[in-house]
Amino acid sequence: MTDAHPPITAVRTAVARALVEDLEPLGDLTAALLPPGALARGALVARSPGVVAGRLAAVEAFVQIDPAVEVDWLVDDGSGVEVGTTVARVRGPAASIVTAERTALNFLCHLSGVATLTRRFVDAATAGGTARIWDTRKTTPGLRALEKAAVRAGGGANHRGSLSEWVLVKDNHLAGMGIGEAVATARRRWPGRTVEVEADRFSQAREAIAAGADLVLLDNMTPGEVARCVADRGGGRPLLEVSGGMTLDNVSAYAATGVDLISVGALTHSAPALDLGLDLDVTSHTA
Amino acid sequence: MTDAHPPITAVRTAVARALVEDLEPLGDLTAALLPPGALARGALVARSPGVVAGRLAAVEAFVQIDPAVEVDWLVDDGSGVEVGTTVARVRGPAASIVTAERTALNFLCHLSGVATLTRRFVDAATAGGTARIWDTRKTTPGLRALEKAAVRAGGGANHRGSLSEWVLVKDNHLAGMGIGEAVATARRRWPGRTVEVEADRFSQAREAIAAGADLVLLDNMTPGEVARCVADRGGGRPLLEVSGGMTLDNVSAYAATGVDLISVGALTHSAPALDLGLDLDVTSHTA
Amino acid sequence: MTDAHPPITAVRTAVARALVEDLEPLGDLTAALLPPGALARGALVARSPGVVAGRLAAVEAFVQIDPAVEVDWLVDDGSGVEVGTTVARVRGPAASIVTAERTALNFLCHLSGVATLTRRFVDAATAGGTARIWDTRKTTPGLRALEKAAVRAGGGANHRGSLSEWVLVKDNHLAGMGIGEAVATARRRWPGRTVEVEADRFSQAREAIAAGADLVLLDNMTPGEVARCVADRGGGRPLLEVSGGMTLDNVSAYAATGVDLISVGALTHSAPALDLGLDLDVTSHTA
Amino acid sequence: MTDAHPPITAVRTAVARALVEDLEPLGDLTAALLPPGALARGALVARSPGVVAGRLAAVEAFVQIDPAVEVDWLVDDGSGVEVGTTVARVRGPAASIVTAERTALNFLCHLSGVATLTRRFVDAATAGGTARIWDTRKTTPGLRALEKAAVRAGGGANHRGSLSEWVLVKDNHLAGMGIGEAVATARRRWPGRTVEVEADRFSQAREAIAAGADLVLLDNMTPGEVARCVADRGGGRPLLEVSGGMTLDNVSAYAATGVDLISVGALTHSAPALDLGLDLDVTSHTA
Amino acid sequence: MTDAHPPITAVRTAVARALVEDLEPLGDLTAALLPPGALARGALVARSPGVVAGRLAAVEAFVQIDPAVEVDWLVDDGSGVEVGTTVARVRGPAASIVTAERTALNFLCHLSGVATLTRRFVDAATAGGTARIWDTRKTTPGLRALEKAAVRAGGGANHRGSLSEWVLVKDNHLAGMGIGEAVATARRRWPGRTVEVEADRFSQAREAIAAGADLVLLDNMTPGEVARCVADRGGGRPLLEVSGGMTLDNVSAYAATGVDLISVGALTHSAPALDLGLDLDVTSHTA
Amino acid sequence: MTDAHPPITAVRTAVARALVEDLEPLGDLTAALLPPGALARGALVARSPGVVAGRLAAVEAFVQIDPAVEVDWLVDDGSGVEVGTTVARVRGPAASIVTAERTALNFLCHLSGVATLTRRFVDAATAGGTARIWDTRKTTPGLRALEKAAVRAGGGANHRGSLSEWVLVKDNHLAGMGIGEAVATARRRWPGRTVEVEADRFSQAREAIAAGADLVLLDNMTPGEVARCVADRGGGRPLLEVSGGMTLDNVSAYAATGVDLISVGALTHSAPALDLGLDLDVTSHTA
Repeated sequence: MTDAHPPITAVRTAVARALVEDLEPLGDLTAALLPPGALARGALVARSPGVVAGRLAAVEAFVQIDPAVEVDWLVDDGSGVEVGTTVARVRGPAASIVTAERTALNFLCHLSGVATLTRRFVDAATAGGTARIWDTRKTTPGLRALEKAAVRAGGGANHRGSLSEWVLVKDNHLAGMGIGEAVATARRRWPGRTVEVEADRFSQAREAIAAGADLVLLDNMTPGEVARCVADRGGGRPLLEVSGGMTLDNVSAYAATGVDLISVGALTHSAPALDLGLDLDVTSHTA
Repeated sequence: MTDAHPPITAVRTAVARALVEDLEPLGDLTAALLPPGALARGALVARSPGVVAGRLAAVEAFVQIDPAVEVDWLVDDGSGVEVGTTVARVRGPAASIVTAERTALNFLCHLSGVATLTRRFVDAATAGGTARIWDTRKTTPGLRALEKAAVRAGGGANHRGSLSEWVLVKDNHLAGMGIGEAVATARRRWPGRTVEVEADRFSQAREAIAAGADLVLLDNMTPGEVARCVADRGGGRPLLEVSGGMTLDNVSAYAATGVDLISVGALTHSAPALDLGLDLDVTSHTA
Repeated sequence: MTDAHPPITAVRTAVARALVEDLEPLGDLTAALLPPGALARGALVARSPGVVAGRLAAVEAFVQIDPAVEVDWLVDDGSGVEVGTTVARVRGPAASIVTAERTALNFLCHLSGVATLTRRFVDAATAGGTARIWDTRKTTPGLRALEKAAVRAGGGANHRGSLSEWVLVKDNHLAGMGIGEAVATARRRWPGRTVEVEADRFSQAREAIAAGADLVLLDNMTPGEVARCVADRGGGRPLLEVSGGMTLDNVSAYAATGVDLISVGALTHSAPALDLGLDLDVTSHTA
Repeated sequence: MTDAHPPITAVRTAVARALVEDLEPLGDLTAALLPPGALARGALVARSPGVVAGRLAAVEAFVQIDPAVEVDWLVDDGSGVEVGTTVARVRGPAASIVTAERTALNFLCHLSGVATLTRRFVDAATAGGTARIWDTRKTTPGLRALEKAAVRAGGGANHRGSLSEWVLVKDNHLAGMGIGEAVATARRRWPGRTVEVEADRFSQAREAIAAGADLVLLDNMTPGEVARCVADRGGGRPLLEVSGGMTLDNVSAYAATGVDLISVGALTHSAPALDLGLDLDVTSHTA
Repeated sequence: MTDAHPPITAVRTAVARALVEDLEPLGDLTAALLPPGALARGALVARSPGVVAGRLAAVEAFVQIDPAVEVDWLVDDGSGVEVGTTVARVRGPAASIVTAERTALNFLCHLSGVATLTRRFVDAATAGGTARIWDTRKTTPGLRALEKAAVRAGGGANHRGSLSEWVLVKDNHLAGMGIGEAVATARRRWPGRTVEVEADRFSQAREAIAAGADLVLLDNMTPGEVARCVADRGGGRPLLEVSGGMTLDNVSAYAATGVDLISVGALTHSAPALDLGLDLDVTSHTA
Repeated sequence: MTDAHPPITAVRTAVARALVEDLEPLGDLTAALLPPGALARGALVARSPGVVAGRLAAVEAFVQIDPAVEVDWLVDDGSGVEVGTTVARVRGPAASIVTAERTALNFLCHLSGVATLTRRFVDAATAGGTARIWDTRKTTPGLRALEKAAVRAGGGANHRGSLSEWVLVKDNHLAGMGIGEAVATARRRWPGRTVEVEADRFSQAREAIAAGADLVLLDNMTPGEVARCVADRGGGRPLLEVSGGMTLDNVSAYAATGVDLISVGALTHSAPALDLGLDLDVTSHTA
């Protein structure tokens, strides 16, 4: 599932930035206590159950510090892990491994946290229907590419990646224009591109459907209101999305309405880190 | 409380990076629907109770998009807010404001989330004793400076900012050396600088205290074990810190042991975003 | 027509980069000959007819060198100019203006060249039908955001901004899969997002239409073949796009087929610069 | 001919920037459809006759995406190609190759376009005399180093690389000073460095020659006027350069005047891309 | 002595920056005269006695230009060298070596200069007592990480790496507050972290000691005044540091006072470069 | 004398980098002790006699931290100062001023050190003859633009700014080629550009003169040998430059030979910092 990985360009720069944060100006003061030539072997192990994401970034952290560190990855992004599952094995110069450890884990735990929360929402929604869970633009600044990949690793999909990808008309954009005119204007300016309309109530949803939007975002509606919109739509177009106040408790009820997509900002703005740690043995350099 | 703000250099680059993520290559497709010259006024409003942080970044997001946007901030970082509290007022070209909105909020909600969780831990600890809450290096990659400032805004303190700031000797660093030798070596190499030792059990803590560490980190101990270490220390030196498994439920018990500092990784790796939104009125350009 | 401007973030970094190219390490050796305090006034004037684009970048070039340079822009991006049309007036310290001049013009002439060629294609297509001209990913490395805005300034539209924006299935991606399966897979993985299929012959186009693609790219077909695809499609969906070998001579014939969109790589990879120059008067500093 | 390559530092950063443009945030949506492990082999083939340039950048594009992609280059920068000439062979993971393809080609086609147009001017000038063709500072922002190398690949030479390299006195710089004084001032301030003077008419050229300039730029003169200046100069110094309105049609006439150098802004601001493409076979991963 | 090396992240970016300075836009004009395929072997040789530092940066300079250059390092950072000592051997493509040579040497000579001056101060101080020499924040902008490592290579220690690492209260910070209050405030805000106080006279030093500072900086005192402060302190805490006007002539007298640390800004702001050169043999490519 | 300033682009990035070094991640811990709203006034004062350089960078340091800091500069780059001369006055928020102080001074003291040493060499040379002092490529990595401007501020000139600016043929480049052939090749490849040849002995110098070099670098010759070369040259061309082992003691003797230029690596690699300090008064915020 290669589409669960972020672009390597984004990984490289995010890791380089994070290493600077943790190392400059003086480097790892404590690692300098290790005897020259000391080696280490270790295992990245899950301490909570969840879904792994962040492999590319974790490997990159070790390798940017020292290409002599070898990392064998045992489970790819998107795999479920239990307490005690070994995710990867690491081997090489001890000082390099302890220096890179925290940065590697910061990526791995955060991104696995995103994947894990996504999986929980996906599972909860599946109990109610076929709706897909997807993310929002409420991502952590600087990490959008990595977090959106982690959502995919968790089984979710990606809403637009930026303001530049598709049109999403909200009340504020109308400024007196009708929805139909807004959709028509957007189509003319941005042909071939997804045009989505946010609707706060049934009448707006109906207007957006009539206007030929590709997606209608039903915002802050009850499951009952959503069901009414679904029924009103008739066939499979446009796709209907719900957002606003989705929780693990209510997502199944929303999925049961027959809606197509459920957007959950919490996937990226409120996912607790997944607990993974590095169990390490430092050995003499003759090992 | 100016020390609750991150360095402006870190703010500028983090915001610039985030705006690139959200705008390139085509810009805000939807904002382009707004009539030329449209103006807007809005209020950044809390939708959940908590503690605000991220003011500099939020302002920077608007101003980097358009210096004509005016932001009047009503409550500074570190202030508590209730549902409905207006945090700031924003005024200026409508297209600029809606374009910068999400980036500004992503910083504000994330950092306020960190400040809010910190405040909750601080309050919980206060119920038990005088121990201070502080953070760890388990920060979101690329945002360490901003998150550590948010911890201060929430009333917490900052553990070391990087591997480069002070020495923290863990088991892996000893590699056969005794704790006393490690502390002496560290002091020789890094004079004047904090030397901390991690201890997993009472005997190690005693050894670290005897070695003259400035800080001893009591890792994964029960409150009872911690209390024993506190009693054993006698006077006020070294400072004793606990870490490992701190929760809002048990932090008071740890504070009650008389320990000095309680480190909580969750402050920065698992804080849910605080819900703040921008209530906006788009007006004609003659407004 | 604010959507004819690129995001300011992209403008700032592109201009900063260009100024470094032209100035470091020693600065403008020749400008240093000017008497201290010398002032200048000048006009950016078109020396060929065309369409202007690049205003933000040109202004940015002057202002990054010296905020004391004042630029009054007379015609916005997207405006047609004749030989002799004054595009902007510039005023300020003479050394600053001559130092920034070439960088400002390099942006302005290149981007206006893109806008001008776009307008020519748009006009030629209009003679044949209602098809829109749009661009491709064949942009100059490092200038995609600016060039795509210039295409809009010229009256064209923007095809996908990057590989990350929408799905475009070509032969190489099928690897044994049928078109229908590819479209279905793409829809499942990237819901809500444009899915386009490239077709080299009528049968493929028919297959892509049947598969429910949003866009079908008719590649290297004759106008006759395109007309057959248009007829076969029936209603307005999917949008049909032609590409491959479009020229100012044949674009009208393609537009006449009733196709919706015509992609022209040349807009960004082969547009000659539009000739604009700065007519400058250097005056004594008491002016 | 290693001097036909740009510095590797410039190549690396230009390619990294271009890949970010095309891949972030979500990566190549379509490549993700390929079966895991799929391999591909391909050939970069010329579809128009011309001169190749951009090898370093094209290789860098593939390798930055995936070091497992192997590129065997068959003709170096500066070589002429015919329709059908294979420029390089590419082999490796299919997804990596299709993801990097457009970026590699954008560099290769643009830079080969520059080299090709240069060669055409060189050939045209050769028909008239021994004058060398060289470029200007009218380069595409951000690509100066790469474009100036492409000019060399095409057989041209490089005029000054930036405002920082040598002195070029134009009317605007004089501000009342005589040419003789300007040259003397420049020599004093910037000893050992080329001092060039722009002359719009014969009398100025004579003045510049008398002033001891190293180079005199004869701007917007007819071949007859140029010939007069050449005759007036006598011996081989200073070098005489013509600029302004050079075309493939008139360049021979200018070369025939005996002038030393002919500067052509069009080499870098108006060269159409050379058409090269990647013919690719995607194979099963067992291939 | 791995702690004599700077973090590799800082080395990589400093070297990349330096190579851009020396190579762009046109590359090494002169190296292009070398015959294609020419190889070279050379030795980095000390031409003055001193202490070497900068190995990582020097290697990085060659390798960033061309990974085919092999560098065998014979003496590590911190080693003393005599006139004629070979520090490293270099082998590979001649053009690559001469192109990277100056950048490699600029790092090596500057950083070895810092290490050498540090060693001289260390040796001079040792003649008087056990005081350690350490550096200041008076570093060359952009090179702090590398210079502080060079100080360690010379046998010195590192004062705080930045304003962010520890508290140093000077007169200007007091603004009416007493020293005791300042120390207490600093401790409360920045627990666990070094708190240092600058004292200009005995009474202030006594106040700072009483306030419980970790370090007291005795600024611009005579050896006699320093000795009085040392005597007054009694036991080993706080550490006492002297600064202001330290020279190779007087440092021994200061060390003899029993003070713990002597800070010398000159280590990083006024160290002359150590003279090292590259003796090179260019050979035919069949060598 | 505006040519004594470096390009503002180089200043901006060098200052931004230096501030990051000194402030991230936590900011100025000590400045946070100042009462909110405290103001300060101060004077940048010379504590040693010398020549000032670095004005743009010093101002930039204050303004990047806080645009509310006002800096009035009293003497421009290139001015001589005595002990006690006030160079500039600074006024604004106290915390901002103390935070930026060290960075501003690091630039100012280093660059003034370069200007001061340059002036000393210029003065010493003037005692012997009319030879100009100029610099080399032996600059501090990352600061070339600023240091070369400081050399100009000190009255020196700038040798080539990079390997990309002109050709300098050394023994290693010849690889069997004669000097005449090398010069001719260089002229053909890089027309209009300075071609310089290094000569270690009289016969080589004669060969280089005969070859028509623009500059001949007489390396490591005695004044007597240099005088012989000068005599041999006859007229004013080529320019003759000496290098190798120039000191304040011997430079006059070299100048007396009639040589044109004297290159001194020490100007940029071994200039001690000029001592300047900030005398500051922190006042209440009502001041």
